[in-house]
Amino acid sequence: TTIRDLGVEIGVLNTGPLNSITDVYGVKVGHYTLIQGSDVRTGATAILAHDGNIFQQKVPAAIYIGNGFGKLAGYSQVEELGNIETPIILTNTLSVPTAADALIDYTLSQEGNEDVRSVNPVVGETNDGYLNDIRGQHITKKHVISAIKAADSNKVQQGNVGAGTGTRAFGFKGGIGSSSRVLPEKLGGYTVGALVQTNFGGVLEIAGVPVGKELNKYYLSDSLNGSPDGSCMMVLATDAPLDARNLKRLAKRAVMGLAKTGGIASNGSGDYVIAFSTSESVRIPYSAEQPITTVELLRNERMSPLFMAAIEATEEAIINSLFAAETMEGRDGHVLQSIPKDKIIKLLKDYGRITE
Amino acid sequence: TTIRDLGVEIGVLNTGPLNSITDVYGVKVGHYTLIQGSDVRTGATAILAHDGNIFQQKVPAAIYIGNGFGKLAGYSQVEELGNIETPIILTNTLSVPTAADALIDYTLSQEGNEDVRSVNPVVGETNDGYLNDIRGQHITKKHVISAIKAADSNKVQQGNVGAGTGTRAFGFKGGIGSSSRVLPEKLGGYTVGALVQTNFGGVLEIAGVPVGKELNKYYLSDSLNGSPDGSCMMVLATDAPLDARNLKRLAKRAVMGLAKTGGIASNGSGDYVIAFSTSESVRIPYSAEQPITTVELLRNERMSPLFMAAIEATEEAIINSLFAAETMEGRDGHVLQSIPKDKIIKLLKDYGRITE
Amino acid sequence: TTIRDLGVEIGVLNTGPLNSITDVYGVKVGHYTLIQGSDVRTGATAILAHDGNIFQQKVPAAIYIGNGFGKLAGYSQVEELGNIETPIILTNTLSVPTAADALIDYTLSQEGNEDVRSVNPVVGETNDGYLNDIRGQHITKKHVISAIKAADSNKVQQGNVGAGTGTRAFGFKGGIGSSSRVLPEKLGGYTVGALVQTNFGGVLEIAGVPVGKELNKYYLSDSLNGSPDGSCMMVLATDAPLDARNLKRLAKRAVMGLAKTGGIASNGSGDYVIAFSTSESVRIPYSAEQPITTVELLRNERMSPLFMAAIEATEEAIINSLFAAETMEGRDGHVLQSIPKDKIIKLLKDYGRITE
Amino acid sequence: TTIRDLGVEIGVLNTGPLNSITDVYGVKVGHYTLIQGSDVRTGATAILAHDGNIFQQKVPAAIYIGNGFGKLAGYSQVEELGNIETPIILTNTLSVPTAADALIDYTLSQEGNEDVRSVNPVVGETNDGYLNDIRGQHITKKHVISAIKAADSNKVQQGNVGAGTGTRAFGFKGGIGSSSRVLPEKLGGYTVGALVQTNFGGVLEIAGVPVGKELNKYYLSDSLNGSPDGSCMMVLATDAPLDARNLKRLAKRAVMGLAKTGGIASNGSGDYVIAFSTSESVRIPYSAEQPITTVELLRNERMSPLFMAAIEATEEAIINSLFAAETMEGRDGHVLQSIPKDKIIKLLKDYGRITE
Repeated sequence: TTIRDLGVEIGVLNTGPLNSITDVYGVKVGHYTLIQGSDVRTGATAILAHDGNIFQQKVPAAIYIGNGFGKLAGYSQVEELGNIETPIILTNTLSVPTAADALIDYTLSQEGNEDVRSVNPVVGETNDGYLNDIRGQHITKKHVISAIKAADSNKVQQGNVGAGTGTRAFGFKGGIGSSSRVLPEKLGGYTVGALVQTNFGGVLEIAGVPVGKELNKYYLSDSLNGSPDGSCMMVLATDAPLDARNLKRLAKRAVMGLAKTGGIASNGSGDYVIAFSTSESVRIPYSAEQPITTVELLRNERMSPLFMAAIEATEEAIINSLFAAETMEGRDGHVLQSIPKDKIIKLLKDYGRITE
Repeated sequence: TTIRDLGVEIGVLNTGPLNSITDVYGVKVGHYTLIQGSDVRTGATAILAHDGNIFQQKVPAAIYIGNGFGKLAGYSQVEELGNIETPIILTNTLSVPTAADALIDYTLSQEGNEDVRSVNPVVGETNDGYLNDIRGQHITKKHVISAIKAADSNKVQQGNVGAGTGTRAFGFKGGIGSSSRVLPEKLGGYTVGALVQTNFGGVLEIAGVPVGKELNKYYLSDSLNGSPDGSCMMVLATDAPLDARNLKRLAKRAVMGLAKTGGIASNGSGDYVIAFSTSESVRIPYSAEQPITTVELLRNERMSPLFMAAIEATEEAIINSLFAAETMEGRDGHVLQSIPKDKIIKLLKDYGRITE
Repeated sequence: TTIRDLGVEIGVLNTGPLNSITDVYGVKVGHYTLIQGSDVRTGATAILAHDGNIFQQKVPAAIYIGNGFGKLAGYSQVEELGNIETPIILTNTLSVPTAADALIDYTLSQEGNEDVRSVNPVVGETNDGYLNDIRGQHITKKHVISAIKAADSNKVQQGNVGAGTGTRAFGFKGGIGSSSRVLPEKLGGYTVGALVQTNFGGVLEIAGVPVGKELNKYYLSDSLNGSPDGSCMMVLATDAPLDARNLKRLAKRAVMGLAKTGGIASNGSGDYVIAFSTSESVRIPYSAEQPITTVELLRNERMSPLFMAAIEATEEAIINSLFAAETMEGRDGHVLQSIPKDKIIKLLKDYGRITE
Repeated sequence: TTIRDLGVEIGVLNTGPLNSITDVYGVKVGHYTLIQGSDVRTGATAILAHDGNIFQQKVPAAIYIGNGFGKLAGYSQVEELGNIETPIILTNTLSVPTAADALIDYTLSQEGNEDVRSVNPVVGETNDGYLNDIRGQHITKKHVISAIKAADSNKVQQGNVGAGTGTRAFGFKGGIGSSSRVLPEKLGGYTVGALVQTNFGGVLEIAGVPVGKELNKYYLSDSLNGSPDGSCMMVLATDAPLDARNLKRLAKRAVMGLAKTGGIASNGSGDYVIAFSTSESVRIPYSAEQPITTVELLRNERMSPLFMAAIEATEEAIINSLFAAETMEGRDGHVLQSIPKDKIIKLLKDYGRITE
């Protein structure tokens, strides 16, 4: 069951056919889920901007940092050059170097990259150390490559998969979530897709309903206890022809979507948004004969509908991650319950969001 | 009537006694409202960090830019030096220079500032040009000084006053709004106050209830028409002892509060947050014998409750501005209706927010 | 006499025909110099990106802040939208609001702008308060408009003119300076021009010769006395087709040129660089039927020669300002001597820079 | 021979006793140099802010990015929280993940860190791929740990050691360099130390003498050939009590020192500056009973001499790296010559810098 299956719509724009980041033309997503014994609960998720050699055909991109208590790799080069040249990997905090290393191997070994001596791997993370033996650093380069190889353009698997295997959100089991929005044809018909790895806290709201407050389970609910820390990695893809500057602006809006779920971007949170455009008209070839590139760009004035789409898709992707995640036991017998769907359905009814 | 009078609480923290930015010890606010003839509908609002000579006793401060389509004066020096040295003025877009000039005059003429040759005026704005003859630039330096002189520490007047006289929000009459939050004693007992000048659009939500959607009045509701543009100026004050770095982090959270009202930080929006601390332990004297200052600072780990307070206070301040604003006619016969309170109360009931 | 007249070349690239920012196609510069009585020594300088209505045909632009102790107007909107929509005005610190107001009047009154209700004036400044009665705020809107009207594409007048009338640099008389560089045809043949308003300190170096040290006139030369404060406004223009991102990168290099003159970007300095492209292929029309703009952009890989040009042109523009400035007496009998050319020529010889 | 041995002084401030970053109280530096067969020419350099457990006793820090074509790890958390919690490692581009992994292992295994589940490794790099088989990724975690273990507070070894083993600068052999400056007692007597890993290009200047131009070896010297790319990692340490904001400002000045050597921060350059304070009065304990920390901070007005020190120390550190580096042959028979000292000494004489 998703929130949308219950008849609850988030926002005012239509979703794409899959309601998934893979609605954006060219985007592929793959997971590797690592569950071993009683205390390994982690994984990796790969997001590919297109089917080809991404190093040779870079995509314009930007990264916005909502709160920077995190270990994301690749920030400064993306900001300087305005592009991404590898798949994006999400994983756990202490496996960022391993994933970065895997991306280097992957890129160096791709056909056509025989002379490449510099690669900027982009890796995001959240800390799954509550359920997962994170200090054990169980993710290997092979796992990361497996996630890349598993990537396809189907509806994204959500919940306890890939980088979301061991995560926690709002005191419940978090995970991977995804959603998309499509603009009306008159506004360009562009698609914006979001994929999130939820591992943060605050006061949960679902479609505006104060679920966290009603369940009496929220940050500060028992004064000094309970931490909202953790992080939320957000990835936005669009087929709108945007350059890095407008992608940065788009990325900022994802945090507004997070806010609507009750997230507070707490001190200990690593809230990063990676945004890229798959439009072929803005693709950036690694090498080119010509010094000048001709690009087609959406004007500033046309950005607002995309901003709205990013906010809505991010909000719904977070909620989707919660609905998809299932109760999991992990390290030291720690258990994270999935959100209590029955109670939530009742609340959605009490608050007029579901009308029978 | 405020939203709180209706029994609706926004967030989980308590408000201060006035539910106003003036709950923060030392903060004073004053308005000058300029309504003349059929087409002058504007004003100025002054926020003072303390009672003394602010140039001689600067306060730590930071400015966060949610979306920078705006003309705020003073940004770079605040960011470089980490402090504010004048009252903060809010006014209309084309009167920023006049207000900045007034702040220079004000500062140069203060006792003790006889040798001052450099002043960094901080002035924010939104565009009230729908109701106001903004091209006429009717605000004078005297008006701005009047706002400063009118400043007191009472509950802030809200709605169609000062810089909020002619503004528009979500297609309705906007204005000035304010709110505050107080942390539990165990978390320091600090107060965070917000003051906003609302002039922006999106899809209005009140306490999570999709008011804009239900009223069928929102950005994109009739496809291509309707603009969400405009801006939101947000000012945050706190008595927590914060330096500029943590004030910048606090400022970022105000945009999350804005997001919860349905704002989308559209392309044409100037969404700025100015945050400062009134704590005397972080005050910055203009001149000092000693090269070293001893300051008491809240640790990073203690910031999360303040972030939450900033989100809640900003959200409620925006909603307060809408409840306080009244229908106004202005330039060229343009009319902005106040929010339809009866309908909204009904919606709050339908959505379980008000229970009789 | 200029440094180049003496046979000293700064850098390795060729200058344009005028060795002036006006070598960049379309750029015009105008000054208004205000010298009155014994204590008014100030002015305004206008830089126009092109001949037309700049509001209707905006140019891509970026602003880099070396050290932000300054009052520049217009920063945030330039950064958000990536363009400039008015002439750029340089003036004294306390006249920024007046100049901003003048730019608003100028823009509102231009043919075609009858419905404009939002203008982002860009105004830079340095503090000429040593020679000038800056507290008197003698610059009026008329003066600023005069500077705009005086703009032409001739070689820029340098020294004690316009915004450089009362400035001080390295303890000597500073002023306006300009220089340009032209890339070899194989690298695109682009021109980069710099215009500076010099009012800062450090340890003067001319073409690598330690002039300040030799003259025993530099920051810290007598231990505690002497301040390097003040500011340097730098404006870069180019006809290379660059977007805001690469213009920001270009702007950063101007501070490297400043460094080579011995500037240290002291605590009290407002070191700002405004960079824009005059290329018609990247022009940004205010309104457009089409949502998509086709632009031609120079690839990242082609930027390095432009960076080098920006460094060289800025360094030489600063030196040019010093050679052009003449001794001036002003407020309270303060006198600033021009650089001692005879001694400097001797030093340039001693240090092998001039060979007879 | 160093430049200073030749009697040439860079700048006007005194050096510390070692003219090395280790003049800053508490700082330790260690190298691991990896030279194997004909094509492995690389290494790692560790900089430790103090002797204790850095994770438990973090130091205030900031990172400034001159040009971000680089893979530095750790940026965003340093910026958000204002501190560094590991040793700083410099290595080659493709070994950043390995070094980051080593820092995680190192930190997790330190006594007192048994419960740590989140570590922010700070790793900088330059690309030594001209001499080194960088694609082979020969650096292991053991090598990195060895560099940390080798750290001491002696004068830093310079040239072809550690992370500088295989680097190239201005077309010559680059390497590790270091220098320091001490302020006069009246200005606080603080020390600023710089350590650099030089691997960049431009038009070499030594103490203002146009060496690159005279040797006809500089970027663009034969029109289209020759690349200035590569990078410069710069690390600044000081015992002045600075917070992250003023450390960021200090960091910006290092790029001004780089500019004075003729660097241009080319498109392909990764020019990063990491600055930290070793002052115990600003140390940041990982956990603390008290929510408030009392810190002693240098006032903004006292920063200028430190800025000057940072510029001078960085410039000299870069020149030191060139004087210390020796000719090296590496991958595919590539050879990098050390700077031609005889010719340079002659030039220093011709240009009046050395007087017999």
